[in-house]
Amino acid sequence: MDIYGEKVNKLIAELSALPGIGGKSAQRLAFHIINLPEERAESLASAIAEARSSARYCRRCFTITDRELCPICTAAEQGKREKDLIMVVETPRDLAAYERTAKFRGVYHVLHGVINPALGIGPGEIRLKELILRLEEEDCRELIIATNSSVEGEATAMYISKLVKPSGIKTTRIASGVPVGGDLEYIDEVTLLRALEGRVEL
Amino acid sequence: MDIYGEKVNKLIAELSALPGIGGKSAQRLAFHIINLPEERAESLASAIAEARSSARYCRRCFTITDRELCPICTAAEQGKREKDLIMVVETPRDLAAYERTAKFRGVYHVLHGVINPALGIGPGEIRLKELILRLEEEDCRELIIATNSSVEGEATAMYISKLVKPSGIKTTRIASGVPVGGDLEYIDEVTLLRALEGRVEL
Repeated sequence: MDIYGEKVNKLIAELSALPGIGGKSAQRLAFHIINLPEERAESLASAIAEARSSARYCRRCFTITDRELCPICTAAEQGKREKDLIMVVETPRDLAAYERTAKFRGVYHVLHGVINPALGIGPGEIRLKELILRLEEEDCRELIIATNSSVEGEATAMYISKLVKPSGIKTTRIASGVPVGGDLEYIDEVTLLRALEGRVEL
Repeated sequence: MDIYGEKVNKLIAELSALPGIGGKSAQRLAFHIINLPEERAESLASAIAEARSSARYCRRCFTITDRELCPICTAAEQGKREKDLIMVVETPRDLAAYERTAKFRGVYHVLHGVINPALGIGPGEIRLKELILRLEEEDCRELIIATNSSVEGEATAMYISKLVKPSGIKTTRIASGVPVGGDLEYIDEVTLLRALEGRVEL
């Protein structure tokens, strides 16, 4: 039975397609949106369209941003962050997790995944070539590998350290303060900091 | 520290403002949206704008729809549902919950709330006047009151039954199969059906 009519149904269907939003949550969200003042609903709609159309990868660190060079790389360019201290993370969300500690003063490199042979993701599928190229062009005093402590994250960390070794760049891994199997994004700031402080050379 | 740039930040802020979506979920959703094919993101944005701009209350039952008469009232108009069996619910979501049982063949009346003196919501703040007017104009053989079994829901049910009594219309209340204090929207179809079958006259 069609309960609401076509346009409300379409909104519910669109919202249900988002990750972590089931049918009932989608319905609840749809009613919330429908009850918003018209300009607030339009503001949400245009935020979606504009963020999507302007979103791109930072040409240096490959995080998601709406400009050519992300705010963090821009700050480094202006001498406000340490350009030669690069932290390698899996996703922009992991980058955001370390930014919340407000203690890391270096820059990042976002891989957009990890090597995962089971899923057919090889070194060519993540932003690893770009990291190597970047290390050739830029001065780097330390490369901190902050991939997750999952099997794939650890394997990717080892792979990168072996790849970088010949260049003589100091390569470190965040400490095992991070619980094994845990997802970096959801770990508290204190644990993230302890892991950073306790990093060991690979 | 600004991590992503203005437009991505704005999207995250807009999503965080939605009910039940915290900061980290908003970020996760924002990245999902940014990674969608452009036409999918635009489809989501336009679904929001269009649903909001076309949404209105059904002129008969006051559920949310995108047309003058909602699909359920239209079906009743065409003789496909029983127009003289009216179920009173608090919200369109409760209506949707009973529609999922696929067994109720009557129509609805959506109050958009319950009487709640503590929150300053009196009988004039919900669609009660409209219900009384409707009962005067239409033939009604039974009015089923399906407000939630919360204190306010029960009180509103009693209030309505007293208001309708003089008209001689049979007024019933869904049975106590519904757990006390529970929210109608989240109850399984079997329990909802049992409550409907066991309804008692007030």
